[in-house]
Amino acid sequence: MADTITTRAKDFPEWYQDVIRAADLAEPAIVVKGAMVIKPNGYAIWEKIQRELDNRFKATGHKNAYFPMFIPESFLKKEAEHVEGFSPELAVVTIGGGKELEERYVVRPTSETIIGHFFNKWIKTHRDLPMLINQWANVVRWELRTRMFLRTSEFLWQEGHTAHATHDEALAEVLRMLDVYADFAENVMAMPVIRGEKTMNEKFAGALKSYCIEGLMQNGWALQAGTSHDLGQNFGKAFDVKFQNLAGQSEYVWQTSWGVSTRLIGGLIMTHSDDAGLVCPPKLAPYHVVIIPIFKTPEEKAATSAVGAKLAEDLKAKGLSVVFDDRDDRPGSKYFEWERKGACCRVEIGPKDLEKKSYAFKRRDVEKKEFAPLDGAVAHITGQMEQMQKDLFNKAKAFRDASTKQVDSWDAFKAMHEGPGGFASCHWCGDGKCEAQVKEETKVTIRCIPLGNPKESGACIKCGRPSAQRVLFARAY
Amino acid sequence: MADTITTRAKDFPEWYQDVIRAADLAEPAIVVKGAMVIKPNGYAIWEKIQRELDNRFKATGHKNAYFPMFIPESFLKKEAEHVEGFSPELAVVTIGGGKELEERYVVRPTSETIIGHFFNKWIKTHRDLPMLINQWANVVRWELRTRMFLRTSEFLWQEGHTAHATHDEALAEVLRMLDVYADFAENVMAMPVIRGEKTMNEKFAGALKSYCIEGLMQNGWALQAGTSHDLGQNFGKAFDVKFQNLAGQSEYVWQTSWGVSTRLIGGLIMTHSDDAGLVCPPKLAPYHVVIIPIFKTPEEKAATSAVGAKLAEDLKAKGLSVVFDDRDDRPGSKYFEWERKGACCRVEIGPKDLEKKSYAFKRRDVEKKEFAPLDGAVAHITGQMEQMQKDLFNKAKAFRDASTKQVDSWDAFKAMHEGPGGFASCHWCGDGKCEAQVKEETKVTIRCIPLGNPKESGACIKCGRPSAQRVLFARAY
Repeated sequence: MADTITTRAKDFPEWYQDVIRAADLAEPAIVVKGAMVIKPNGYAIWEKIQRELDNRFKATGHKNAYFPMFIPESFLKKEAEHVEGFSPELAVVTIGGGKELEERYVVRPTSETIIGHFFNKWIKTHRDLPMLINQWANVVRWELRTRMFLRTSEFLWQEGHTAHATHDEALAEVLRMLDVYADFAENVMAMPVIRGEKTMNEKFAGALKSYCIEGLMQNGWALQAGTSHDLGQNFGKAFDVKFQNLAGQSEYVWQTSWGVSTRLIGGLIMTHSDDAGLVCPPKLAPYHVVIIPIFKTPEEKAATSAVGAKLAEDLKAKGLSVVFDDRDDRPGSKYFEWERKGACCRVEIGPKDLEKKSYAFKRRDVEKKEFAPLDGAVAHITGQMEQMQKDLFNKAKAFRDASTKQVDSWDAFKAMHEGPGGFASCHWCGDGKCEAQVKEETKVTIRCIPLGNPKESGACIKCGRPSAQRVLFARAY
Repeated sequence: MADTITTRAKDFPEWYQDVIRAADLAEPAIVVKGAMVIKPNGYAIWEKIQRELDNRFKATGHKNAYFPMFIPESFLKKEAEHVEGFSPELAVVTIGGGKELEERYVVRPTSETIIGHFFNKWIKTHRDLPMLINQWANVVRWELRTRMFLRTSEFLWQEGHTAHATHDEALAEVLRMLDVYADFAENVMAMPVIRGEKTMNEKFAGALKSYCIEGLMQNGWALQAGTSHDLGQNFGKAFDVKFQNLAGQSEYVWQTSWGVSTRLIGGLIMTHSDDAGLVCPPKLAPYHVVIIPIFKTPEEKAATSAVGAKLAEDLKAKGLSVVFDDRDDRPGSKYFEWERKGACCRVEIGPKDLEKKSYAFKRRDVEKKEFAPLDGAVAHITGQMEQMQKDLFNKAKAFRDASTKQVDSWDAFKAMHEGPGGFASCHWCGDGKCEAQVKEETKVTIRCIPLGNPKESGACIKCGRPSAQRVLFARAY
């Protein structure tokens, strides 16, 4: 049946699609290869993500700007590794205004090149640095295998691009923004993340080093939720972005870039949701409270609605998003609908509740329905929203911690990833070929070398050669 | 000299470009035909425009969503007039992931077609109506002649798309959103506008009727600042969007679309700015107050800065955007810079001001500098910001009213448009050929038939045939 949600245990990818459909978040475009429509319920989450991140970007001194979406094809070729990484994924505009174009444009897959071109014009001396720019935009990457939110041919994102006078300053920026992402993931999305460094095989095409935050989904797969890149002077050299330093000498700038995308919504779904539908932390939820009057007669409807509507107004005044659902429909089907859509909690007010001056309260993430006095309802419900935000994080963190294991034998490694998955903390020799072999045999990749990783001698999980530290392996989206 | 601003009297188009450069709002991309970069100062204005409009859209029941930017080429052909209007302006993607595409995609010039495709899937019965959607997005129209903000190959905009059960409801929506635009233009942009109906020659390709708001720029040219379209059942038929009505019959939906774009920033500049640079109404200004301590010695700097920094904090606490500019630079060059950038007012605090417990205050749109007591500065400055918002509107309205003339002879008509320009309120026979002839001879077009236009008998300004009403003619961007 099109309207049921497959259980996670039965088929996790199917469950994921079902939740998106049941919560009316998005749908595949079909007529546009690999693209999707973000429907109002999904876009409302994206707007809240944007608002939270944008405030953090501004608080750390960044300013928003907007650059052309079309990039001359020749620009990509200026940075050798960059073009190699992105050329298989490009959409190319060859016709404009009815005519074949002399120079073809690619639709931006990311904007380092076009922004490098403008940094060249804008940056002259050390007084122009640091230059701290962010852009909210759509980008296109022609992917063969797409999954809603996680990997689509067109997606929405933000991309920070900064230029600095020294490598130290650039690196400080890279880590500052990684911290901003981690803070956002944990305190807003309620999704615990590991901060780490990517291996050379997994870094951004054109970066010296890439850093990431990695979350763990309920199926034991990891999700790269945000990246922050130390671009070194690679794009500075490619686009001749030089500044005069304090000593009057001309130097290339040091650049960074960092981004998160609508992929975060996929991470949000796979971190918290359950077999009944979407579960959303209050800080990003489109619906905090649904108030449902229970009635059989018009008189009962009038009496319960009056109390419900008043409570709705009081909760809205506290900044909560409230739906007062007095449709003439069975309460059960309303409960079902709002659970699927991820409303954080539901309040039921029936004639008996009025007699007792109480209401029924059901939090989306708590099994049991409870009864509470109407007097003090606003404080109780707002308090519950704060508690839910914390509880969801703690629950996800407990799962992540329980799913993170030190693994020291290849058999145990294979068994873990053929089984429940999770983060395997393993010794690794540091050789990219060894890493590639693991990927080929098991599809498992090194998610990151955690920041502040303790040094520890050991033997590489794959080849047995000496290793100086453990790294995190997992299957990943 | 690259750094001077041409006067409006000398060369208005040059002045316009100079103000954009001097206020650091944007620059032409050059390497991408007809495109521009919106720089942080310009984008800050766009963000405020977005916030104000988005609040109004939500307050009138609309929800944001996001649709694919690529549209199958065949979709445009489903509505005959639509494809005819837009095909000369299309950018076409023919290559994806290294391969020639089987079906080519156009980059959206507007989204009626792709949204029509999804409305077909989403709308089944009268209970799904009205469907009230808005999208914030970039669009591409391959224009031959481009001008920054006013007409660029890629631009940012919002496009509302709604579907209704009856034509009356759709028309009410069209006029409701026109009112939202007019309210925003007048009360936020401080730009007086005329609401009206477009002639058949000037309407949107695919609409039954188009409505618009028209502003008048300082050079006597009109600017179409927003449009709202009654699409009738044209797209409903093209995409087979039907619903079951209350009687159980299947009917095509009635649709509307409405949009405003980054063009508004061009209108903002040309309505208020002067020969010294940008003038921006407080509700959209990136900088409200610039506080400049005046000093010669370190002791003076410390004393004036202490008072200035404290005032800055107090003003920020009132929600104003404040720059405390204590750079070691000549005050005169700071005044010059902030005037160009459109800071709404400037506060100077020097050693003598401290003695007198006063400060110097200069509003961007008022010639004279005044002195006011430091005690009560916050109330005075916030009050001045409110007054400035009103004064800018009144000044623009006085100019618009003085530039709007009843014209009843062809000679006077030509003289007006060879001279100062403005809105010419003239009789028109209603014949599109006559309208086209006026345009060919003078480049002047009918901007609109004002809403609530009084009926009045007269003779067409061009052909002399009988006319039932006056319409507004002007040169336009």
